[in-house]
Amino acid sequence: MTDITDKEAQHLHRLILFSDAVFAIAITLLAIEIHPPEHWSSVGDLLSQMRHKLMAYAVSFAVVGVNWIAHRRTFSRLRRADGVLDVLNLLMLGLLALLPLGTEMLWENGTASSVVVYVALVTAIGLAHALAWGYAAMFAGLSEPMPTGEKVYVLLRVALLPGLMCGLTFLSIITQTWWGWLGIAVVVAGLSMTNRLMARSGALPAVPAAED
Amino acid sequence: MTDITDKEAQHLHRLILFSDAVFAIAITLLAIEIHPPEHWSSVGDLLSQMRHKLMAYAVSFAVVGVNWIAHRRTFSRLRRADGVLDVLNLLMLGLLALLPLGTEMLWENGTASSVVVYVALVTAIGLAHALAWGYAAMFAGLSEPMPTGEKVYVLLRVALLPGLMCGLTFLSIITQTWWGWLGIAVVVAGLSMTNRLMARSGALPAVPAAED
Amino acid sequence: MTDITDKEAQHLHRLILFSDAVFAIAITLLAIEIHPPEHWSSVGDLLSQMRHKLMAYAVSFAVVGVNWIAHRRTFSRLRRADGVLDVLNLLMLGLLALLPLGTEMLWENGTASSVVVYVALVTAIGLAHALAWGYAAMFAGLSEPMPTGEKVYVLLRVALLPGLMCGLTFLSIITQTWWGWLGIAVVVAGLSMTNRLMARSGALPAVPAAED
Amino acid sequence: MTDITDKEAQHLHRLILFSDAVFAIAITLLAIEIHPPEHWSSVGDLLSQMRHKLMAYAVSFAVVGVNWIAHRRTFSRLRRADGVLDVLNLLMLGLLALLPLGTEMLWENGTASSVVVYVALVTAIGLAHALAWGYAAMFAGLSEPMPTGEKVYVLLRVALLPGLMCGLTFLSIITQTWWGWLGIAVVVAGLSMTNRLMARSGALPAVPAAED
Repeated sequence: MTDITDKEAQHLHRLILFSDAVFAIAITLLAIEIHPPEHWSSVGDLLSQMRHKLMAYAVSFAVVGVNWIAHRRTFSRLRRADGVLDVLNLLMLGLLALLPLGTEMLWENGTASSVVVYVALVTAIGLAHALAWGYAAMFAGLSEPMPTGEKVYVLLRVALLPGLMCGLTFLSIITQTWWGWLGIAVVVAGLSMTNRLMARSGALPAVPAAED
Repeated sequence: MTDITDKEAQHLHRLILFSDAVFAIAITLLAIEIHPPEHWSSVGDLLSQMRHKLMAYAVSFAVVGVNWIAHRRTFSRLRRADGVLDVLNLLMLGLLALLPLGTEMLWENGTASSVVVYVALVTAIGLAHALAWGYAAMFAGLSEPMPTGEKVYVLLRVALLPGLMCGLTFLSIITQTWWGWLGIAVVVAGLSMTNRLMARSGALPAVPAAED
Repeated sequence: MTDITDKEAQHLHRLILFSDAVFAIAITLLAIEIHPPEHWSSVGDLLSQMRHKLMAYAVSFAVVGVNWIAHRRTFSRLRRADGVLDVLNLLMLGLLALLPLGTEMLWENGTASSVVVYVALVTAIGLAHALAWGYAAMFAGLSEPMPTGEKVYVLLRVALLPGLMCGLTFLSIITQTWWGWLGIAVVVAGLSMTNRLMARSGALPAVPAAED
Repeated sequence: MTDITDKEAQHLHRLILFSDAVFAIAITLLAIEIHPPEHWSSVGDLLSQMRHKLMAYAVSFAVVGVNWIAHRRTFSRLRRADGVLDVLNLLMLGLLALLPLGTEMLWENGTASSVVVYVALVTAIGLAHALAWGYAAMFAGLSEPMPTGEKVYVLLRVALLPGLMCGLTFLSIITQTWWGWLGIAVVVAGLSMTNRLMARSGALPAVPAAED
């Protein structure tokens, strides 16, 4: 079962192509419900009227982008695919395809509740992605050989990062304090340090950044 | 004619890429007509107001997903393509591209008639897919060598599964009894057993699950 | 200049992928402006109310499908691409992307004028495609080696077929006579015979159907 | 670090596929908000009523097309990708995905202000693209070996061309004089001459047109 047949490699290839197409469509559709205001006098007035929509677009674009980068990273560590991975990946894409809807909700209803729903959706995408990675790497043996420590590290990073970054961003905007931005800095610095420590202790290859 | 030229392999490759793009767009467009309600007080209220739309979205996402997985399975058994397969595959994609419309109908008009139209559409997609597979495997010799038993098994699975699962799901929801869910369990268990019996009798390769 | 570098092959590959994505999006968007009627009593009533839209969808789906098949055929005969082919191919895709708009016009305004505009658009797509093929095969030497007769045959088929088929289809529907359908039969039979005659005379390879 | 692993080549491949899908969707969505007028008497009347929309569509289609061709050219000169390039490329795609919105604004509000906003958006896309290329070629060593002169030439061409062409086009239309068109001719001729001079002086390979 450890030898990879041509068919299994093709399966993984087609799964990646399909996911890329869904990512690309979801990211492009984010802007489709944004329309220019009917009346505007100057460029400043236009930007001021569209401020909320453009900010929601920028946040959602970043969310899909972060998830695409994470997907590229996890799937570049896989060597083959199976039917269960198909289903778990579809689950993640099904939640991702709801992001244009979540973005529209965000700019139409800027209350704390809508931010909660939005962050919950982003967190759910991260969890579905982690489920797919966890199944592939830990149960089905679909990944390339790597230490368990790295598998867990990838799992946590994929599962927690998008929701955490997204929540902290909104916290920073809403509370208008520096706590949220400090939190983001701590998370990024912590990830980078963990990465280096694992590389030094041999749990990660020496130059992982070159692959990522 | 049994030797595969480079061009024929390219033809199959491009047919698969095109189909994947259509699947990806259809699955992402399912959510595009869903908009948040104008007024909602709490997260519970929001989910309650959007219940029908989200359920219709989930069902349609599952339908496109099941069809994509089935398409991946049938086409991974093909070795080349021809012009007739192009047309039959387009017929299937043309019906699939109507699913966003069928989904919209389902949540706007939750009557038994709209469920009938929806299940008929899903059944038609399955039949068109079966027609494409049947032509490729049984008439045009486009598939890899395999016993006739397996060809028929793939045909029935592709043709009947999506419509059957979909019909039983709605039956379960509408009648609110356990008959529908029992039916789904029987179908899945039956398929799994048939798969094993065929593998034991030599009509299927010994470890088919690894390829699927 | 006749040796194909790796880069030139990659260029052609990326041009084909991009075109496939545009074809796939255009064909899926055809259905996006179709919405179910607000009130309908039975399945028969629903189909009767949506008759015009579904017919326009079917015709446009066939048009994009015929063009995709033609594009696959012409581009499978190319060995490399250049910047001018990029531009001519974009011109064709730019007209193709207007088909959803043309389809909407067709069902909203079923007059003879809208049919004329629609057929003109389909004809323009065919001409742009023929321009791209003619440039690639006859001026820039981007195609695989083939007799001039075959080059001209592909040119005419690509340029005239979509508009002709489309015009004859509408003629058949509008005049409600058998003249249009007879015309389609004559065109298809004529193409098939020309194909065989050219193969016999050596202007085409002996088994062209296997490649197409 | 100069040896390219299989993974790094795959990374670049997936980045290109994803970008192509976003380009294809953005270019096809340009037409989605164009609807036929409710009443029109003749083909001439139809075209006259839709004149502004079709012109804005043609300009935006050309802008996305020019950017796609530029993207193909810069990325064909890269040999691998890294995480920073992912982010810079996403930034460029995020601006590109706003073009359908910019196009809608252009035809709804034909004032000088909307032209300024549109040209600013096109310029920003060019700058983001130049940033991605500059990082990849000059800082991260992701490109194939080439003289610094060529790197700078590609940078300026990618950064300045789309905004310049777009601004001059609008200038020509608005002022209704020949100054704008003369400017475009000067830019194109200048680029072509620079290309030849660099090739003669050895800063560019002898037959660069064959690759482009």
